[in-house]
Amino acid sequence: MSEPKSKNITWHGTNVEKAEREQALNARGCVLWLTGLSGSGKSTIAYRVEQLLLERGKFAYVLDGDNIRYGLNKDLGFSPADRTENIRRIGEVAKLFADACAVTSTAFISPYRADRDQVRAICPAGTFIEVYVDTPIEECEKRDPKGLYKKARAGLIPEFTGVSAPYEAPENPEIVLKTAGRSVDECAAELLNYLIDKGFVTAG
Amino acid sequence: MSEPKSKNITWHGTNVEKAEREQALNARGCVLWLTGLSGSGKSTIAYRVEQLLLERGKFAYVLDGDNIRYGLNKDLGFSPADRTENIRRIGEVAKLFADACAVTSTAFISPYRADRDQVRAICPAGTFIEVYVDTPIEECEKRDPKGLYKKARAGLIPEFTGVSAPYEAPENPEIVLKTAGRSVDECAAELLNYLIDKGFVTAG
Repeated sequence: MSEPKSKNITWHGTNVEKAEREQALNARGCVLWLTGLSGSGKSTIAYRVEQLLLERGKFAYVLDGDNIRYGLNKDLGFSPADRTENIRRIGEVAKLFADACAVTSTAFISPYRADRDQVRAICPAGTFIEVYVDTPIEECEKRDPKGLYKKARAGLIPEFTGVSAPYEAPENPEIVLKTAGRSVDECAAELLNYLIDKGFVTAG
Repeated sequence: MSEPKSKNITWHGTNVEKAEREQALNARGCVLWLTGLSGSGKSTIAYRVEQLLLERGKFAYVLDGDNIRYGLNKDLGFSPADRTENIRRIGEVAKLFADACAVTSTAFISPYRADRDQVRAICPAGTFIEVYVDTPIEECEKRDPKGLYKKARAGLIPEFTGVSAPYEAPENPEIVLKTAGRSVDECAAELLNYLIDKGFVTAG
């Protein structure tokens, strides 16, 4: 645990123990960290999983790489340093949501291994679930839902992951989710089943 | 809505409408923004309210001014600019929690009116509840739970709110919570009753 900038702060204990919170809400929080190229399907899958969880009355929320940049991280760009700070902040927020007992999905390219490992390191053991949304770049480029690959190939977007900036694939992700040739529902069901297997969500 | 730094991002729609989420979770989110001097009782009251809500099975969470500085905002100090950025980020996170249908309490000194108004401005209408924890500085200094006033009076803490830095009291808070001569339970009950009155929590 790194030290904050000021020494004149102390910890506040919450009145509620983690186990009490889990029992009160009948829920266990975790971070489903989806990582993959632009267009790989991260957000679409994350939102479908959220929907499945809400249908079960489970507290779930998606932190979205694109959306959050209009709020918390609107001061950040796409340089390596800003990408790192982007992921750091999201990781801290995801950790808070998980601590609050939400199944928290995050949908960010998060191209750097070190940044993802940093988030893993701050999360309580077993609560960080790295999901490699493994879609070949050719497939992502074919989908190109926002026309970004086209722009990137034309040199209009600097530092575009997979084109002019690196993507470091996870080495030991909890889940490798192959999306090519599969439906969103199939992929979402695979994640939901994982959550049930691990006891984050009750079956049925 | 201010524009983010990059233009190459687009909004993702969530699959779940707000009303559907509220119905699925039987919950309505809001931000209970507690503001007041150090030692005024913000955190203590916020945690007690959280406990009361969890006892009712309601999703609730406290963002704490001291604690969050070990995580999300550990890069920030106590200069005016850093205090503003501190509150900006917390406001964005609180907004996300409220969007997720949590009753989100924040316990920050948040001494600048403009910073608090900025958070109010980004929250959907009616979901930002400013709670002025109105404890006279003499009382705060008498409590001095962390010995900070003592240090500040000795000149050991620069820019300490109420001593060597300003506190701008709210002009039109939703709630003024007088704590002198009252118990934590009385103050927490007042907030809970407000939430019930406004329909954020069901009675009983």
